[in-house]
Amino acid sequence: MGGNGPEVVATRQVHQGRIVSLRLDTIRGPDGALLEREVVEHRGAVAIVALVRPDAVVMVSQYRHAVAEWLLEIPAGTIEEGEDPEWCAARELEEETGYAAERLRRLFAMYTSPGFCNEVLHIYVAEGLHDGTVNRDPDEEIEVVEVALADVPAMIHDERIRDGKTIAALLAVIAAS
Amino acid sequence: MGGNGPEVVATRQVHQGRIVSLRLDTIRGPDGALLEREVVEHRGAVAIVALVRPDAVVMVSQYRHAVAEWLLEIPAGTIEEGEDPEWCAARELEEETGYAAERLRRLFAMYTSPGFCNEVLHIYVAEGLHDGTVNRDPDEEIEVVEVALADVPAMIHDERIRDGKTIAALLAVIAAS
Repeated sequence: MGGNGPEVVATRQVHQGRIVSLRLDTIRGPDGALLEREVVEHRGAVAIVALVRPDAVVMVSQYRHAVAEWLLEIPAGTIEEGEDPEWCAARELEEETGYAAERLRRLFAMYTSPGFCNEVLHIYVAEGLHDGTVNRDPDEEIEVVEVALADVPAMIHDERIRDGKTIAALLAVIAAS
Repeated sequence: MGGNGPEVVATRQVHQGRIVSLRLDTIRGPDGALLEREVVEHRGAVAIVALVRPDAVVMVSQYRHAVAEWLLEIPAGTIEEGEDPEWCAARELEEETGYAAERLRRLFAMYTSPGFCNEVLHIYVAEGLHDGTVNRDPDEEIEVVEVALADVPAMIHDERIRDGKTIAALLAVIAAS
């Protein structure tokens, strides 16, 4: 499968923000007609499966304003301008959970919502955890919890875990174990 | 864990679009300071793990403008205003792949990017596939392919599959099989 994408005829920046920007592209469709495409631009992010024991993972519970709910997620964060994703993963893990990792291993990368957003999420497995330094943003209210990997499938099924990156990353680690 | 979220002091609609809208909320943080939160609004979507055989799934390859790449994904689509997610799943499966399903079973729902977007994705398993009617949007160029479930973990690892919903849904079906 392949071929290049359609010609972009015009582009307009609607919003340039702290976490996301929004761009409206006018493209020429397969039949020649002009179509509008909304593109949410994001710098990319990392998420970390931090194995506090071989069979348990460190998770964070936090309020997510966009969905107006407390969610149970694996530690994650947005990549700073020019930052290496692996460095970002080490930084976010320690800032959010207080754990430093001896080893970080890249699992895979994925697009979170490729229908309208260019966010790439790089997922790492962290092992050899030891105490580091918690350093949260002043607006981050986070509770750190340990979850047994064996409990994860049931927690996805009954939607105690309902964050997509967390589901993808934890199931990948379980499948490989 | 719990408690309600922070007070929303002001809200401003920046964009009202076809697939997404963008809203800027001013909230009062835990320490009383005012903070801005960008919220990408989305009506919600469905995705379908369509088992053409017990050990193989129907996937679609399509160009995604937001990421400027061809991606291999499970069939999916945005929920129409007032549409039941299960009806939407049956409709999108048939429109994109030409398969109608005898049985649809809800797997789970997940947030695709809860840090900044309220999109909920409802995932279904479709079984008992038989020929239906392809009915794509005129701007949809899609190739339908069958993938063995046994090949999926390696395809995630080497990033031939790099769509988050597809990774989460297929690994969940594999874990349960």
